[in-house]
Amino acid sequence: MQNVPVGGFRAALEALLGADWPVGSSFLACGMVGSRQGWLEVPYLDCPADLAALAAALARVGDTAISIVPGLISHDDGVPDVMRGEETQILGALEDGAARRVIILPGTHSKWALASASGIETFATFMTGELYGVLREHSILGRLASEGADAAAFERGVRFGVQSDIGLSRALFSTRTLALTGALAPAGVADYLSGLLIGAEIAAGHRWLEERAAQALPITIVGDAMLCTRYRRALALAGVDADVGPGDAAARGLWRIARQARLVA
Amino acid sequence: MQNVPVGGFRAALEALLGADWPVGSSFLACGMVGSRQGWLEVPYLDCPADLAALAAALARVGDTAISIVPGLISHDDGVPDVMRGEETQILGALEDGAARRVIILPGTHSKWALASASGIETFATFMTGELYGVLREHSILGRLASEGADAAAFERGVRFGVQSDIGLSRALFSTRTLALTGALAPAGVADYLSGLLIGAEIAAGHRWLEERAAQALPITIVGDAMLCTRYRRALALAGVDADVGPGDAAARGLWRIARQARLVA
Repeated sequence: MQNVPVGGFRAALEALLGADWPVGSSFLACGMVGSRQGWLEVPYLDCPADLAALAAALARVGDTAISIVPGLISHDDGVPDVMRGEETQILGALEDGAARRVIILPGTHSKWALASASGIETFATFMTGELYGVLREHSILGRLASEGADAAAFERGVRFGVQSDIGLSRALFSTRTLALTGALAPAGVADYLSGLLIGAEIAAGHRWLEERAAQALPITIVGDAMLCTRYRRALALAGVDADVGPGDAAARGLWRIARQARLVA
Repeated sequence: MQNVPVGGFRAALEALLGADWPVGSSFLACGMVGSRQGWLEVPYLDCPADLAALAAALARVGDTAISIVPGLISHDDGVPDVMRGEETQILGALEDGAARRVIILPGTHSKWALASASGIETFATFMTGELYGVLREHSILGRLASEGADAAAFERGVRFGVQSDIGLSRALFSTRTLALTGALAPAGVADYLSGLLIGAEIAAGHRWLEERAAQALPITIVGDAMLCTRYRRALALAGVDADVGPGDAAARGLWRIARQARLVA
């Protein structure tokens, strides 16, 4: 979306499609295309939101054949929380009839959601990926890092992040002090920091599940394959099993919503 | 220190002093001048460290009349923690004979220390200022902010940061969702974020004090006057009284250490 000029969504879509699509087609889109900076701002739908409610709330773009899936808003824990696009990935990760489970979508703004095939109950966002990015690029912690991958440093970070109850703004400083005292090699700094942030997310996510008596539900991780592997490893270190969902969850979700909305047979 | 070229410390000091100082003077310095990137790397002294131990561990720079105060290292909570310069400010904030108390030094890397006139027991670092800086300058949260000061937004951030147990990487996202839903004006975003981070530091700092049965000790805040005011207000919102220490704590601390080391009468 960030590469499309203002007012350029139709041209961008037509360029993508070429001449190769049948007259009378319907189009379904999700994600930031429905945000204030997108093609059409679609109001957030309240949680819990079932598949039928999402399908009924599709927003048509002007007189086009294009509809946009609304994002979701929840109001747990005293502050609003929002998603756009992940609702579609979540529904795509769940087959028809799938039972209640936890879906984790790692990323810039990681989401933890409680959902079943019929819909999404609620969710929580953790700024793990964005914190990693800004600290890696712009903080004193990043300046200590050299290029390299270090699985042991990642695991050490995860363990400290999961177990530590000292506050994230304090725990993060251990990245500096371990490097300064030679206990962490420069090539391990980035992976330690990544593990620490993911570990802290897992600890807070687990508390969030416990408050909803949902800590025993099965967990599915959905998203970029490399990130899914990282999160699955981190969850295993925290003693939690998880499987990895389909790589095409967004397409599957759009299909389920389109079918529910009778855009397809 | 960041403005002094490699090997340029002597020239920088001479430029600062001019011709106007008596032959036979002694000089005492503290802070990052004693770090690996400073004039002379001075090993960290272990905590607890009393005034006598600090004075005995001064490191002379070559054959000059310049000595550097060592920084401190502590090993609580499973990871090392370090300071350079703050040990001198802490001792400068305590008059001879002053009883045990908590000293908070807000900043890029905020310190909470347990200390009395005779020395420093232990301390903890929180990356509050650096997190604020990188999130304000480089994250999606900063992009939502417009210029402005908003005391109510600061207080709201402090209250949420102090009370919230949802994890910092989740709590931070409330900055975005409150702005997105119109519950927080763009001019309040930066102050809300600042309050949230300071509130989270206060909550974690309070737990740190509780674990040491030190939560009832008096608190003194030492540092930049504007930051001290912010922290005192935030502590008051958390129900904790604090006073503000002398603005020249570093100079006072250097004097106390110099006297102990018999560099001055």
